[in-house]
Amino acid sequence: MIEYYDISGCYILRPWAISIWETMQVFFDAEIKKMKIKNCYFPLFVSPGVLQREKDHIEGFAPEVAWVTKSGESDLEVPIAIRPTSETVMYPYYSKWIRGHRDLPLKLNQWCNVVRWEFSHPTPFIRSREFLWQEGHTAFATKDEADTEVLEILELYRRIYEEYLAIPVIKGKKSEMEKFAGGLYTTSVEAFIPNTGRGIQGATSHCLGQNFAKMFEINFENDKGEKAMVWQNSWAYSTRTIGVMVMVHGDDKGLVLPPKVASVQVIIVPVPYKDADTQGIFDACSATLDTLTDAGIRAEVDSRDNYSPGWKYSHWEMKGVPLRIEIGPKDLANNQVRAVRRDNSAKKDIPRDSLVEQVKELLESIQQSLFDAAKVKRDTCIQVINTWEEFTEALSQKKMILAPWCDEEEVEKDVKTRTKGEMGAAKTLCSPFDQPALPEGTKFLSKSFLSNVIGQFVSNAFWFP
Amino acid sequence: MIEYYDISGCYILRPWAISIWETMQVFFDAEIKKMKIKNCYFPLFVSPGVLQREKDHIEGFAPEVAWVTKSGESDLEVPIAIRPTSETVMYPYYSKWIRGHRDLPLKLNQWCNVVRWEFSHPTPFIRSREFLWQEGHTAFATKDEADTEVLEILELYRRIYEEYLAIPVIKGKKSEMEKFAGGLYTTSVEAFIPNTGRGIQGATSHCLGQNFAKMFEINFENDKGEKAMVWQNSWAYSTRTIGVMVMVHGDDKGLVLPPKVASVQVIIVPVPYKDADTQGIFDACSATLDTLTDAGIRAEVDSRDNYSPGWKYSHWEMKGVPLRIEIGPKDLANNQVRAVRRDNSAKKDIPRDSLVEQVKELLESIQQSLFDAAKVKRDTCIQVINTWEEFTEALSQKKMILAPWCDEEEVEKDVKTRTKGEMGAAKTLCSPFDQPALPEGTKFLSKSFLSNVIGQFVSNAFWFP
Repeated sequence: MIEYYDISGCYILRPWAISIWETMQVFFDAEIKKMKIKNCYFPLFVSPGVLQREKDHIEGFAPEVAWVTKSGESDLEVPIAIRPTSETVMYPYYSKWIRGHRDLPLKLNQWCNVVRWEFSHPTPFIRSREFLWQEGHTAFATKDEADTEVLEILELYRRIYEEYLAIPVIKGKKSEMEKFAGGLYTTSVEAFIPNTGRGIQGATSHCLGQNFAKMFEINFENDKGEKAMVWQNSWAYSTRTIGVMVMVHGDDKGLVLPPKVASVQVIIVPVPYKDADTQGIFDACSATLDTLTDAGIRAEVDSRDNYSPGWKYSHWEMKGVPLRIEIGPKDLANNQVRAVRRDNSAKKDIPRDSLVEQVKELLESIQQSLFDAAKVKRDTCIQVINTWEEFTEALSQKKMILAPWCDEEEVEKDVKTRTKGEMGAAKTLCSPFDQPALPEGTKFLSKSFLSNVIGQFVSNAFWFP
Repeated sequence: MIEYYDISGCYILRPWAISIWETMQVFFDAEIKKMKIKNCYFPLFVSPGVLQREKDHIEGFAPEVAWVTKSGESDLEVPIAIRPTSETVMYPYYSKWIRGHRDLPLKLNQWCNVVRWEFSHPTPFIRSREFLWQEGHTAFATKDEADTEVLEILELYRRIYEEYLAIPVIKGKKSEMEKFAGGLYTTSVEAFIPNTGRGIQGATSHCLGQNFAKMFEINFENDKGEKAMVWQNSWAYSTRTIGVMVMVHGDDKGLVLPPKVASVQVIIVPVPYKDADTQGIFDACSATLDTLTDAGIRAEVDSRDNYSPGWKYSHWEMKGVPLRIEIGPKDLANNQVRAVRRDNSAKKDIPRDSLVEQVKELLESIQQSLFDAAKVKRDTCIQVINTWEEFTEALSQKKMILAPWCDEEEVEKDVKTRTKGEMGAAKTLCSPFDQPALPEGTKFLSKSFLSNVIGQFVSNAFWFP
């Protein structure tokens, strides 16, 4: 999937990874085009004046911004930043382009690279200094339209995770502390990595409210001839999606790829015994390849003569190919193939004349099984709690905690401080949209704890260690 | 198409431009995938040690390299370059990945941005400090395979220009002086801008030979068990393609878009006179839109009520939409529409019941006419010459000159010096693959001129002022 690179925090995305990215891109790009969102491309570089226009926003990103100060041997007159995200790159032009209500909505998206020069624990896909993403930036006449789009996009992100990557996610709203710097509210899809017991943000869809509109003077004349300010959203998903997939489905043998995103869905391995009809077996492999390819299934034959079948099995298991087809002398004699699933090692003999049908069924079944298995694992890690003792207890067991929550920044900071330990401090994931009712007056914090906080516990929120 | 940006030499590519880029990308990406070339993504950043490994190559790019020296408030330990192209980014890993002949060919491509911090005359699309491109990088066991691929890719570039952008191009080989820094030979497709009398490089397909393989130690064990060195190619086309299209087809009214790449192929304008059946006209526009859209034609209705039909005509002409459909009371009465071509203003009444068929014909005809017109214009600018006097005379007339040529760097430099003037110095475009035979002993240079050059005039080459 990746190769380590000689600059720390940068990784080479090899074809095995990029093909997954492209599959998701084809889906998402077609969906946003149906929503009349158009693609564009803004520059990689930002001038410092523009970058610093929105104070809260830049505070969130400033420590991670990479600066170009030289070209060739010459110093630049003014250092130039590389975009960590493009709000400040784009919005001066939104201000220029939007004049009247007929210019709205303005809905743009770009597929690009961004740079965040983080120093803590670079991890391939999950935390890298350069990554690929799409970023959508939209402006509306009314808050209602903005609110609606936030959720439409979030639903597309859910579909990427659940339908393509076979990863169950929770849709919800980020806490005030964790929301996008400078925005009004942030929604997200959140995944969970059972092996580490950690939640992980999957993708975010932000309502920016009118804060950026104010800073960048994005005004328009509404249909009554009055001056008004736009409502804005921004939303993004990145190559992190691939990292989440690797961590959720991977096992001791290596990668496990969901069939919908695997660039090779079926690997065909000839198994020629010493005295067998080798040519017959190779021909059967080619014929099987043709049959599957014609049916739109992404298949390949591994016909290398310098590796044994056993070596090939391990090789393609490690690479995560969802289904292996073996063809040996017995299969040839019986006009069948043997199919072996990557996810559960189940074997099945398939008659050649029902090949396409049964392979399609198997691939669908693998896709569903991966999702179901991930969901069971995640659900068993969720713990609903009502007291602080239960909270700390669940935390030590690496549970994902659903707890009553007031959404006050001060409380979140306090919880962080109190839970700081080997595992790292507890952090909110989100207040899920779909959640159990909260009886009036619910509390989970003991009196001695945070007794100074006067907050209503407005919803449940997931926390993770 | 573009918006100027607050950093000189950087431009915003608006949806009208990006949709053209995407259309070409869909074509080219599918074609290279048929050739078993796979997409990948290498980092934006290069460490200085790697960048400087190939001396000739870096000499060509060094003055234009942008350097990152700071992140947040901290200085980086070592400055890091932004890729101007990715040979030096990729080839250390080719050396790692390629071990034996079974690892070959290695054929990768990436779609990305690159940065060349040029200071001379930034021009949108044509010469910008950041641009989008694809770059292919392939390695083969034999020179034959490399040579073959160079021309296969060049043919795809020809098709992009001729079939999509309706621009005639000349395929050929660059001179020694103009070839890719560090490569063995460079082939290109060359276009011509009649209005300025200047040739312009359209896209390049390089055979790198074994020079980079030597510098980056890209060796393999061949099928005889001997150590051998790979043969490499690299090839690229960029958003410059769009700039060439703008310059070749544009006219006094603005852009002219070839139908195959236009994001809107047909704009439908209602023409409601005072006493007319306005609702009927708008309904006919909607019905026309549906009919065209269902037939796969990219159409839109301009139903804005705050602009006159005349204003809309000019607006969409300026934006280059290939075909306008007007629907007024008379059209409604006769169950027809009026079609007006952007390229030659020809008008045609089309009965509603043959709408799709005739619109398709018109779009094909416009595509062909644009190509034909550009070819006629270009061909009239080509001048075949045989003496130095003819050469300088043709140069002053802004002709594209086809002249006998020895392909020696010293001669090209001398011609440059001698022709330096208001127009700029004469430069070779390429030695076209398809060219008139050259009688043995051909000369065009007088004795007094370059008498010290002992060169055979091996082929004709195009030159431009």
